[in-house]
Amino acid sequence: MNNNRKALSILLRARMRPLSPTTNRINQMQFPPIDGVRNGKVSTSQDASATLHTDFVRVQQSMHSAISMNKTEILDVALDDFSEGYYGLPNENRRALLLTLAREYDLNRKQVRDLMKQYLGLELPSSEKPLENAHEGEGSFSAFYRIERTLRESLKPMYEVLFERLNTHPGGLRFLSIMRADILSFLAEENTAVLRALDSYLKEKLITWLSPANLQLHHITWDDSASLLEKIVAHEAVHPISNLLDLKRRLGMGRRCFGYLHPAIPGEPLIFIEVALMKHVAQTIQEVLWDDPPIPECEATCALFYSISSTQPGLSGINLGKFLIKRVIDVVRRDMTTISTFATLSPIPGYMQWLLSKLAPTEISDSTFSENLLTPVEESALLEATEELTMGKNGMEVLRNLLSSSDKWINSENLASVLRIPLMRLCARYLLQEKKRGKALDSVGNFHLQNGAMVGRINWMADLSEKGLKQSAGIMVNYIYEVEHIEENAQSYFGDGDIGSSDEVRSYLEPRQEDHQEEIKD
Amino acid sequence: MNNNRKALSILLRARMRPLSPTTNRINQMQFPPIDGVRNGKVSTSQDASATLHTDFVRVQQSMHSAISMNKTEILDVALDDFSEGYYGLPNENRRALLLTLAREYDLNRKQVRDLMKQYLGLELPSSEKPLENAHEGEGSFSAFYRIERTLRESLKPMYEVLFERLNTHPGGLRFLSIMRADILSFLAEENTAVLRALDSYLKEKLITWLSPANLQLHHITWDDSASLLEKIVAHEAVHPISNLLDLKRRLGMGRRCFGYLHPAIPGEPLIFIEVALMKHVAQTIQEVLWDDPPIPECEATCALFYSISSTQPGLSGINLGKFLIKRVIDVVRRDMTTISTFATLSPIPGYMQWLLSKLAPTEISDSTFSENLLTPVEESALLEATEELTMGKNGMEVLRNLLSSSDKWINSENLASVLRIPLMRLCARYLLQEKKRGKALDSVGNFHLQNGAMVGRINWMADLSEKGLKQSAGIMVNYIYEVEHIEENAQSYFGDGDIGSSDEVRSYLEPRQEDHQEEIKD
Repeated sequence: MNNNRKALSILLRARMRPLSPTTNRINQMQFPPIDGVRNGKVSTSQDASATLHTDFVRVQQSMHSAISMNKTEILDVALDDFSEGYYGLPNENRRALLLTLAREYDLNRKQVRDLMKQYLGLELPSSEKPLENAHEGEGSFSAFYRIERTLRESLKPMYEVLFERLNTHPGGLRFLSIMRADILSFLAEENTAVLRALDSYLKEKLITWLSPANLQLHHITWDDSASLLEKIVAHEAVHPISNLLDLKRRLGMGRRCFGYLHPAIPGEPLIFIEVALMKHVAQTIQEVLWDDPPIPECEATCALFYSISSTQPGLSGINLGKFLIKRVIDVVRRDMTTISTFATLSPIPGYMQWLLSKLAPTEISDSTFSENLLTPVEESALLEATEELTMGKNGMEVLRNLLSSSDKWINSENLASVLRIPLMRLCARYLLQEKKRGKALDSVGNFHLQNGAMVGRINWMADLSEKGLKQSAGIMVNYIYEVEHIEENAQSYFGDGDIGSSDEVRSYLEPRQEDHQEEIKD
Repeated sequence: MNNNRKALSILLRARMRPLSPTTNRINQMQFPPIDGVRNGKVSTSQDASATLHTDFVRVQQSMHSAISMNKTEILDVALDDFSEGYYGLPNENRRALLLTLAREYDLNRKQVRDLMKQYLGLELPSSEKPLENAHEGEGSFSAFYRIERTLRESLKPMYEVLFERLNTHPGGLRFLSIMRADILSFLAEENTAVLRALDSYLKEKLITWLSPANLQLHHITWDDSASLLEKIVAHEAVHPISNLLDLKRRLGMGRRCFGYLHPAIPGEPLIFIEVALMKHVAQTIQEVLWDDPPIPECEATCALFYSISSTQPGLSGINLGKFLIKRVIDVVRRDMTTISTFATLSPIPGYMQWLLSKLAPTEISDSTFSENLLTPVEESALLEATEELTMGKNGMEVLRNLLSSSDKWINSENLASVLRIPLMRLCARYLLQEKKRGKALDSVGNFHLQNGAMVGRINWMADLSEKGLKQSAGIMVNYIYEVEHIEENAQSYFGDGDIGSSDEVRSYLEPRQEDHQEEIKD
């Protein structure tokens, strides 16, 4: 399809055009050259900056045409000019352009205020007798409906026109996603209200356009095009794909990969999920990535989601994963009746960072104000095991030094067995109790909990990759999607911040018998 | 896919459930039986009406749950209950339910007013120095952005939640389309402001969800499923498909059929267009429907659009056809380089109705105030040809009687040749000059003109079917889509009401030599 070719060519341009300020597009310019730029020759850095300025002005003009086009101009050309021009701009000019868009194409506040005054002048129809007196009330409501509709229109910023027009333009949705990725990166540098407003409006529009009703679930297989599979390799963010054989195994027997495709961005899943069909809920990522051969599919009782990755930074904050997981559960349940368990094997990306911040020495005396994270039993076992290493004056200090220095402890059976109890217990605490604004502190945890999962099990020595050790001391977690309770869990988490969990995980948080005895002994 | 099955089962239910008030759904009811209804037996008409009332209350309750669901309820179930319940309601109850939705789930006008007062209390930041003083202006704009966002939210009626939830629910988009078809039919009976507001809001949402970016162009062929092809047969509204052979020919060599599919309504094109590949722009529908065998495709120079039909009455007023035609032109141009002409062969559905209304006797004396539609030459030729039939005292009356009595004139070579000149001339006038609110009076004409076509040629004896003779005395029109001028024509029509036309069609409107002579003779 034409769309496809267009999107690809825009993509290629986007990747191939350097963003350096030396980009010379003089020969293609339609505007008269300005000072210092003559006959397409750019020789000094002053000239180069003038060129950039001309480029900027040209793109700004095409943006203006794309928004305010009148009947004699041709919209598609303006939109193409604008998006191509935008791709050619260096970052600083993109930022200036987006600021112009946000400021100069905002709402007409004068008109909004006039309409509001008019609206407030209307007498509110009585709400006492809405049904009995329906026909007489009609007339007075009619005026309300009319102004309310006009108000809704006038409260839309002018730049909505650009978003809407781009959305229906070939390659435009992808362009908008790139534009939002830019906005987000500029906001990360400097969080200004005007860019925040632009972002929040664009995000709202993208949520509408990317509604699950518009997305197609695609079962990704080895028969898909290389260009699609290339995107899977490039964007797998959880467990990187090491080579073609690895990719082929993830798409083959006992494995599934599903992506969400949008008709306007063909051949590029916006998000995809990898699934392993297993006899039991896997405890380690090694079982998933390297069990050779996989079990016969008819023996599987569990669908394990072991990776979910988004390909579009510009869609950040738009939760497509929730719908993808629900759809995949539906498809797998329908196709494979032996499967009754739906679980994840997930990283815990924020665990070590949280723990190390808790272990950090405070300026105030440790013993009085800071919490001792270790139980007496844990602390004495730790001190005993590290006696010869002289790693610190108390358990917390020893723990901090063990975890932050290197991953040596993993190779010592003794150290690992001593660390296991406190690290698993604190991990359960981190996952079940540590929150930020009422939501789970861990980002992956928050994702699955808001989708309706519960914390099912935590697994020791589950991911021994460098990344796994650094993020979570090698611990991984199984979130469980209980089909009957997904909505309920999601609502309960969303409403009250309740984190559902199994007895097994909660048991880590209960006082242990020996601790209790120890305390009595003291 | 699950969606597909669900949509189909809803569809089947919708078609199979009678809408008569005797529908007995007692056995499926979840609410306690009310007076007069016991053990699933309904015997008197009073009982039946009570049942209906219970049904209505039940559906109203599920509608309420679907809108205001709290965390313990399950949204999908509420939406299913509501849509299934709705399909089971007779028309009068559907209407009452929609009125309840529109009235009771409207905006919170108290909140809107409070926000407006708050907004009007803010001091408008100076617009004099928006760029120089950007950082200082930030803070004051921030308050505006915040209230404006809240206002936008609060100006959305509560029923938007139902629309949004249905849109992401399997089968929901199709349900919304049926709901809107109902609203439109109730509005046709009685045009009330409250239903108008509901319709206009739902229409806006549907336009967003059915944006061309979300639609897929599908080349419909004989290899498509019977269930899809059945829909083509059922909804072909212009030239009914007489049998399977007729259908096969329309999908075979030298022909194309394209449809727009939405992912949420699989297997059912929302709109489809039929195309014939020809050597020349066809003048009669007979050439298109019955030329046997078609020309080799490589000899074609013209793609002729001879039929475009929508399958969804609930999408009335949402112009999907415009985008479909543009997409099809793009696809055909890409695939068949020999084709350079894009034209339609279209009916003129309003011509005879307009002409007969113009010919109708007025209460005031004809000769003084009413316009004589015929030229002196036309009138005398007509009177001469019908002398023996004594059909009227003047040309207008004769013409009216000829056209309204029956289609006998078509079988008389003499009458047809006398009628040809005035009917073709008046047809050109109808197409180029007769307007309603600045738009072409003819609905098909308005459709193609707003899409960017021009009136290319009118054809005598082009459709001799009963419908063709009744609508337009057998005349058909070729609208031409000139690829380079589509946007320009559309804008010019949209902005100024300009109707583009060829010299040939315009020439019908110029005074003819013989008329001129006749007038001088007088």
